[in-house]
Amino acid sequence: MTRPFISLLSDFGARDPSAAIMHGVILGIAPAARIVDISHEVHKFAIRDGALLLWCALPYLPVGFHVAVVDPGVGTSRRPVAINSRRGDVLIGPDNGLLVAAAERVGGIETVRVLEAPEYRLPVVSTSFHGRDIFAPAAAHLAAGVPFDALGPQVDAASLVASPIPEPQMEPGTLRTSVVYVDTFGNVKLAGLRSDLERAIGAVSSGQVLSLEIRAPSSRMTAPWVATFGEVPAGSALVYEDSYGRLCVAANQANAAKLLGLVEDTPIVVRRP
Amino acid sequence: MTRPFISLLSDFGARDPSAAIMHGVILGIAPAARIVDISHEVHKFAIRDGALLLWCALPYLPVGFHVAVVDPGVGTSRRPVAINSRRGDVLIGPDNGLLVAAAERVGGIETVRVLEAPEYRLPVVSTSFHGRDIFAPAAAHLAAGVPFDALGPQVDAASLVASPIPEPQMEPGTLRTSVVYVDTFGNVKLAGLRSDLERAIGAVSSGQVLSLEIRAPSSRMTAPWVATFGEVPAGSALVYEDSYGRLCVAANQANAAKLLGLVEDTPIVVRRP
Amino acid sequence: MTRPFISLLSDFGARDPSAAIMHGVILGIAPAARIVDISHEVHKFAIRDGALLLWCALPYLPVGFHVAVVDPGVGTSRRPVAINSRRGDVLIGPDNGLLVAAAERVGGIETVRVLEAPEYRLPVVSTSFHGRDIFAPAAAHLAAGVPFDALGPQVDAASLVASPIPEPQMEPGTLRTSVVYVDTFGNVKLAGLRSDLERAIGAVSSGQVLSLEIRAPSSRMTAPWVATFGEVPAGSALVYEDSYGRLCVAANQANAAKLLGLVEDTPIVVRRP
Repeated sequence: MTRPFISLLSDFGARDPSAAIMHGVILGIAPAARIVDISHEVHKFAIRDGALLLWCALPYLPVGFHVAVVDPGVGTSRRPVAINSRRGDVLIGPDNGLLVAAAERVGGIETVRVLEAPEYRLPVVSTSFHGRDIFAPAAAHLAAGVPFDALGPQVDAASLVASPIPEPQMEPGTLRTSVVYVDTFGNVKLAGLRSDLERAIGAVSSGQVLSLEIRAPSSRMTAPWVATFGEVPAGSALVYEDSYGRLCVAANQANAAKLLGLVEDTPIVVRRP
Repeated sequence: MTRPFISLLSDFGARDPSAAIMHGVILGIAPAARIVDISHEVHKFAIRDGALLLWCALPYLPVGFHVAVVDPGVGTSRRPVAINSRRGDVLIGPDNGLLVAAAERVGGIETVRVLEAPEYRLPVVSTSFHGRDIFAPAAAHLAAGVPFDALGPQVDAASLVASPIPEPQMEPGTLRTSVVYVDTFGNVKLAGLRSDLERAIGAVSSGQVLSLEIRAPSSRMTAPWVATFGEVPAGSALVYEDSYGRLCVAANQANAAKLLGLVEDTPIVVRRP
Repeated sequence: MTRPFISLLSDFGARDPSAAIMHGVILGIAPAARIVDISHEVHKFAIRDGALLLWCALPYLPVGFHVAVVDPGVGTSRRPVAINSRRGDVLIGPDNGLLVAAAERVGGIETVRVLEAPEYRLPVVSTSFHGRDIFAPAAAHLAAGVPFDALGPQVDAASLVASPIPEPQMEPGTLRTSVVYVDTFGNVKLAGLRSDLERAIGAVSSGQVLSLEIRAPSSRMTAPWVATFGEVPAGSALVYEDSYGRLCVAANQANAAKLLGLVEDTPIVVRRP
């Protein structure tokens, strides 16, 4: 008998006790649960940022109950939801687009329930901490054996707020995309996967030089597509497929974001030179 | 048979290995223990800061053994203590006020022991890391079944250093308080609960305008009491009861601490306008 | 039957999901594993920094499988290795010096294997995330019962890249050393232990005044050897044996690194005055 698995993601930060309180609430309901923190350092209120981290992590986590809380609308009419994925996970959090891309990545959305059943919330629900009062308890009750369908009424998956992760635009010879995430090494993640790039400009392989138009046509540069950072000199820019399949601009032993002045939402156009 | 629960709180930070070492020491003594980190990002040496985080978290954690280490007096004659709460917890740490408010919040202090029994410390006790050498081992031995009374001699609860969390001053129509904590969203927590405010100025309800005198009588402003942030425009200040029952000054989708120049210990007087 | 123990250390940071992904990969292979994070805040690419944290932590952790990933050479020809220690641990990570000092501290190196067996890696191995694809899976398979010898071919321990932690230089009356770590309190750790100092200048005891030559002969100062910080006035510098046996320059209730302008690699010469 394996122990039920719960993951947590939020913008609560490591200093405030909020993440620990979610652990405590879960263990009070489901003492056998195994809990892993994906990250509590999502940028404050940044739904897309949280959506991307969840998208990265979920394929590598055991099938389980995944609680994500980046929730600028807490206390308003936005719905608290649970999404059943085809892989068998349940993703739990606010209906604000946070969960959708990750659910698609683990098989796609099967059914959606709104977390309305009062017996699976804490007795008192605050207006500002639904992670503690609604989302963590829902995951814990599922982990303790409550059936998914008991959480509340089913709603149409099409009624969910869409993912905030933008789609790259592909036309023959050109991929138009933008920065969606800068990791703590300064590697710059783009909207779009290697497969998107190859659909636009054809197959790329190690050493292939690419033209990057950053922010505006006037700031054009080139950088090679590489398999490993060591293929370019230290400090030089490169483009590669990161370990999640995503397009990434980086620099060998350097912080590409600082080097190239790239921040979230910077537009980038990729072409053959 | 449920596994014993241990929580950890400290000002050690996430970079140094100190928190992990406490985990390791505990698991060496009590392999079945379930450990949750409340926070290791308490401001350095800030006893009140740690006391507040512990006060927030404990009601939501399972009954267990709670180790807290914010310990500017480590290596001096300050006593290492264990406090038995009426809820059944044991709070473990330095006798410097850190544990008292949290113990009161989980039923109140029943008995206090000084951690003197050498068999429940590590064999060598350093002068600078009692979290590893005294506090974590005490919690682990309790988790492994050692009775509370075996830890060391009993002392009078009245001999404990008092809590550093200030009490608000209430007089008819006026609550005098101060900032005790700024959370990572910039929400500003005050000394005192909603019940304190209502004892001073009578019942408050959503939309009630309050007068706030910040730092000095000359800087007076008004802000509404609200149930949810969305009741005021984005960027506007508000007063609300946070999810722990505490008075809190915040701003809708903004950082109230920055907006209003509030830092820890800023005096605030609340009245009806 | 005790649960297998796995520790993790990296420079991945708390924001990126990389550490959580290692947890997830491990639990997918070894659901019973007990996992403790030593630190994921090693300075980026700083092998010595990671080596020191591992050296500090390992003696206090249960015997187990220790994964360390500070890996500027990921994707190059540097070898992924597993080191069997005489205490019974297995240390897993890149062959770049990261693991050696810690292995010596838990009994010394017994045998070394290169992580080449494909069945104990993830099916697809990326060029940039061997923590996920090679190191965490190796630890998990060992935790699940795979024998150490199955991981790959044995290599000579003498072929390992040496530890980057410098040795102090001792001559009669003089210890020449340098700063190797500044902890989050601003305490300044030196290369070398108390025993090294005493071999150079003889036994030291509380109150003994030492001459410190910082960076250059012109900047000489004195500071007492103390057993506890409280032996000097607040804000004053001191030298002590930290809780790991290491020489440390600190200041009572102050940040010694800032006070004295000490950073990593600052040379320090210690003599009797």
